[in-house]
Amino acid sequence: MKVKVSELRAYCNDVLTTIGMPADEAEIFTGALMHADQRGVKSHGVMAFERYTNLLLMGAMQKKASYTAVIDSPAVAVWDANRSCAHVIGHWATLAAIEKAKISGLGMIGVRNSNHFGAGAYYSKLISDADMIGIVSSTAGPTMAPWGGKEKQIGNNPLALSAPTITSPTVTLDIAQSVVAMGKIANLKTQGIPDVPEGWAYDKDGNPTTKTADVYSIVPFGGYKGFGLSFFIDIISGILVGGCTGARCAEAFVGFGGPSHSFLAINPKAFACEPDVFKQALEDRIAEFKSCPKKDGVDTIYMPGEIEEICYNNSQEETEIINEVVDQLNAVAVKVGSKARVSGVK
Amino acid sequence: MKVKVSELRAYCNDVLTTIGMPADEAEIFTGALMHADQRGVKSHGVMAFERYTNLLLMGAMQKKASYTAVIDSPAVAVWDANRSCAHVIGHWATLAAIEKAKISGLGMIGVRNSNHFGAGAYYSKLISDADMIGIVSSTAGPTMAPWGGKEKQIGNNPLALSAPTITSPTVTLDIAQSVVAMGKIANLKTQGIPDVPEGWAYDKDGNPTTKTADVYSIVPFGGYKGFGLSFFIDIISGILVGGCTGARCAEAFVGFGGPSHSFLAINPKAFACEPDVFKQALEDRIAEFKSCPKKDGVDTIYMPGEIEEICYNNSQEETEIINEVVDQLNAVAVKVGSKARVSGVK
Repeated sequence: MKVKVSELRAYCNDVLTTIGMPADEAEIFTGALMHADQRGVKSHGVMAFERYTNLLLMGAMQKKASYTAVIDSPAVAVWDANRSCAHVIGHWATLAAIEKAKISGLGMIGVRNSNHFGAGAYYSKLISDADMIGIVSSTAGPTMAPWGGKEKQIGNNPLALSAPTITSPTVTLDIAQSVVAMGKIANLKTQGIPDVPEGWAYDKDGNPTTKTADVYSIVPFGGYKGFGLSFFIDIISGILVGGCTGARCAEAFVGFGGPSHSFLAINPKAFACEPDVFKQALEDRIAEFKSCPKKDGVDTIYMPGEIEEICYNNSQEETEIINEVVDQLNAVAVKVGSKARVSGVK
Repeated sequence: MKVKVSELRAYCNDVLTTIGMPADEAEIFTGALMHADQRGVKSHGVMAFERYTNLLLMGAMQKKASYTAVIDSPAVAVWDANRSCAHVIGHWATLAAIEKAKISGLGMIGVRNSNHFGAGAYYSKLISDADMIGIVSSTAGPTMAPWGGKEKQIGNNPLALSAPTITSPTVTLDIAQSVVAMGKIANLKTQGIPDVPEGWAYDKDGNPTTKTADVYSIVPFGGYKGFGLSFFIDIISGILVGGCTGARCAEAFVGFGGPSHSFLAINPKAFACEPDVFKQALEDRIAEFKSCPKKDGVDTIYMPGEIEEICYNNSQEETEIINEVVDQLNAVAVKVGSKARVSGVK
């Protein structure tokens, strides 16, 4: 059903503050969730809200966010997030990376002992909003096997990149390292759909499967390339920052480290490239791609992130939330003692 | 045929210095070519030597490498390479990125107006040899269409990442953003093989083709994801550093800018992660993947770059060079007036 964004926003804020999150932090968390829903990235919007509130209630996510700087220099810092809300810490870390890049040209914040940070594009776009290039990634609980193996040992670690433009939508590529997200297959299961398309998933023996019920792991995109990229995200967002990888960053285990992230801001000014010059050159490249002769059946050549930006612009007032999620949200409110409710638009 | 590495090395050095390259620069260039051949990455070894010598002879590649620092700060520099030999400039830029990362934690050198730099792994491995994480990429002449288009407008821009280990092969992922390199298809054409596997290529109209003769462009890996990644390499290695993208970086045009590159070194020490700790954690992760239960028919789970490292170790004395390339090399020597020749091992 269609839900008013303002109502959904008020709902999230009220439930989070009722649980005990400070109002300013609830505002950031809610903003990141709305951003995902409005961009049409439903798996990272309020669909995950119940899961997050459970982490708050079980103590795997601290109600008040805090971090300890393990190390700090003009270009780099590593934060221990003490299992805080990843959206709040991620927002802060992104702003800190931008500040470092203003001074050093490059700014990178590693965050360990965090939680699931939702959609990476939220953070990379904050960086491009500051006229810089943003590169953000995170480790994740295992959904894929190493190439040639059959046991799930590595996440389809998200990678988000954004670059600033003048009038075109910000160029934003936010990808998992699998052909499709595990969430998509979980959705098919929930809806009782018996088949998944070829090339998406493996069964317990590592053989390709198209039966929803037999899905055990998901296929890295580009085969060994997707595994390799995910491994390097493990290395850069995990090992480098002293964080967790694989099964050790499954979010729901209290006492374990949770996912870890990296936020890199690259300041064009440090490359002798003033923001206006950078953005104009990027607009020129976009114009070139946009004017490419199209294949039969193709109406528009979309740039990375353009479809999501169109969705965002069309969702300023209302956003589509499936009925089951609305019911779930209202049950969460009842459970935590919040009076906030979500209802459809007439 | 099998060729002695020492002979091949002496051959390259002699031809390059005969053309007019300083001996120390010829040594670097030759070393990078040997590295590719010994790792089994034949397309970036001496198979490309004739092409490079033509660039030297036509003036699209300067005989003596030089660069102008456009900007320089503790973490970042941009160099204008004046269309020097990219392998030489790339080697120097990599060392400069390492020096910056020693001081700032992160070091990034952008290089514009360069040439084809061969295999990115050569540079990223220099960085991992210095106990840092290396990320290297380059723009390239167009071989792919933007997603949905049919005209070649973007390169299958190479991306190489390396991370240091203790006893395992350095973890190195060196990938193009296409399912297969255009060079592989060119090889099929040369050999008169009429068919290419499904999923590799498109014809002039952007339709999938399996006929070698009809191949016009190549398929980005992971569809829009591969296009998106290549676009971001255009942005970071091209636009950010004031360099060329697409048709403007086709290497053979004198007066045009040529490809441009970026070399990023990430120093674990700046992340409170001493090299020994970093490398041990990476070894542990490798051991975990190596012990993953294997799919039927799989003997070994290889890490990224492992197969190439095995090939390298087995090619210390001799390396396989196809007969046509040996003939080509000897013809180049005759053309430039070098007495050096390449011959097979008995």
